[in-house]
Amino acid sequence: MSTSTMNPSNSILAVGSMAFDSVRTPAGNAEQVLGGSVNYFSVAASFYAPIRIVGVVGEDFPKGHLDWLGKKSIDVSGVQVAPGKTFHWVGSYDGNMNEAKTLSTALNVFEHFDPKLPSLHTDSPYVFLANIDPILQQRVLDQVKPPRLVACDSMNFWIAGKPDELKKTLKRVDILSVNEGEAFLLSGEKNLSKAAARIRELGPSVVIIKRGEYGAALFTRESAFLAPAFLVDQVVDPTGAGDSFAGAFMGYLAEAQVHRDLAKTNPQQWENLLRRAVLAGCVMASFTVEDFSLHRLMRLNTHELVDRQKSLMKMISVS
Amino acid sequence: MSTSTMNPSNSILAVGSMAFDSVRTPAGNAEQVLGGSVNYFSVAASFYAPIRIVGVVGEDFPKGHLDWLGKKSIDVSGVQVAPGKTFHWVGSYDGNMNEAKTLSTALNVFEHFDPKLPSLHTDSPYVFLANIDPILQQRVLDQVKPPRLVACDSMNFWIAGKPDELKKTLKRVDILSVNEGEAFLLSGEKNLSKAAARIRELGPSVVIIKRGEYGAALFTRESAFLAPAFLVDQVVDPTGAGDSFAGAFMGYLAEAQVHRDLAKTNPQQWENLLRRAVLAGCVMASFTVEDFSLHRLMRLNTHELVDRQKSLMKMISVS
Repeated sequence: MSTSTMNPSNSILAVGSMAFDSVRTPAGNAEQVLGGSVNYFSVAASFYAPIRIVGVVGEDFPKGHLDWLGKKSIDVSGVQVAPGKTFHWVGSYDGNMNEAKTLSTALNVFEHFDPKLPSLHTDSPYVFLANIDPILQQRVLDQVKPPRLVACDSMNFWIAGKPDELKKTLKRVDILSVNEGEAFLLSGEKNLSKAAARIRELGPSVVIIKRGEYGAALFTRESAFLAPAFLVDQVVDPTGAGDSFAGAFMGYLAEAQVHRDLAKTNPQQWENLLRRAVLAGCVMASFTVEDFSLHRLMRLNTHELVDRQKSLMKMISVS
Repeated sequence: MSTSTMNPSNSILAVGSMAFDSVRTPAGNAEQVLGGSVNYFSVAASFYAPIRIVGVVGEDFPKGHLDWLGKKSIDVSGVQVAPGKTFHWVGSYDGNMNEAKTLSTALNVFEHFDPKLPSLHTDSPYVFLANIDPILQQRVLDQVKPPRLVACDSMNFWIAGKPDELKKTLKRVDILSVNEGEAFLLSGEKNLSKAAARIRELGPSVVIIKRGEYGAALFTRESAFLAPAFLVDQVVDPTGAGDSFAGAFMGYLAEAQVHRDLAKTNPQQWENLLRRAVLAGCVMASFTVEDFSLHRLMRLNTHELVDRQKSLMKMISVS
């Protein structure tokens, strides 16, 4: 796992929300803790590659958080501090740990977020567009030199609310990761394989469908790969599982310096790296859910990560 | 896959319900079609080993059904024909294909079912106790010479209604297969690993937790194995998926002539055969759900079965 930082050939640019979350789950509560898609993504990805994040926070966002991200080989020079308060999400999980119930959303400074990339960020070889307005996702792509790989996430709000703009984004994306319900809504299909096939027609050559506690499914032109979630002893808070999945997934591919052309030049290796990246994502998500906010990832070490990767491999191996 | 029938060393005795089902699913309706746990189990298992079934039907049960089972190397000499009508289950699946809603249950002749084994059946090396009253499950075990492997199924009705009797059964069983909700109810745990560990303390050294469209998890003393469900193009009717899973699982182990002692003498091989048996179960279940009743299994051929086994292996392989 790499820790080099100077404009390296495997940097990932990640754009998305930075937030405070207040969460209630059957395991307890967390008030006003660090959240937001780009935070989960970048901390997860930082185990594999250097990260540059672009986002916006309010004046209430503790400088200590940004300092801490900086120590994780996460470049925070693209984080804008805007007058006002940081985005605040309040949600709960009751019974069904696979689906959050939003109790309130205060967009605050995030409402007028307009991603502006520092010039250094424009040559990022890997780009992850977290779940934000598809118009903003396109604006990010407009600012970067052609990357090796672009991945994005989305959600029901944009799928239903801005379908045409989302489709424009998807035309420019290699990899889409969404959850099962989002895949069904986006595709109009209620079957996993059919949904993935339909979404692939919209642009992304790779579709990942996240299935919460049941893992994730990867679809390429060639095949489907079904990865289970790692079995954890207790799910404390599922928030951020999907974003940290995406972070480790993208980090794994960036560390291996994968270019989309590999799909043509060495489809077998492409397929296999994608599969290993999915497993890396499952492992990272399994740590995320073991505590509130980024707490588990904050104290995660490489040794634990490698150990659990081996354990997950054992859980799926047949000889 | 074996088709020998003369008191062979890999015969499976299966005891459970034989029924007519009337089912409504989003894909359509089926009225008064062949159903019942032992029918699904035995047809699935018959692809691997000779089967002997014990059950009861009413005078309305078409002789053609029994003749057809007989042609599948299924010995039906233990099927009692009792005065009255055959068990009739009426159910529907609305939205959630993982859970049937029972609309009506007419037990009919099944209400007074008392399994009596023909003498030839008492030396069956493999025994499967489908989901019936745990008192009857024990009565079956009382009648057989010590088998190589005993597996059983159960359901919420018995877990909640006859917990002490069920625990007596479990003490005599090597393998329990239940679904997720049943595992949680039986164990008092809401976590998959913990539930399996608790159930293993009750007797079965192997616990299989079925997860519907998400596959199945296998727990042994050594490890956990997570198998996905095969991705089918359309789920027409999930009825019987669990029983045909169990049939192929047990059939696979019987064909390999597995004895429980293998867990001690060659734990690696034991583990691996169990894992392959689980995958065989997932594959068989995936065929079952593609049509109503046993219709898909009726027209299933070995070539299709082998093909799909290979496809499922591809869906979980990482090199």
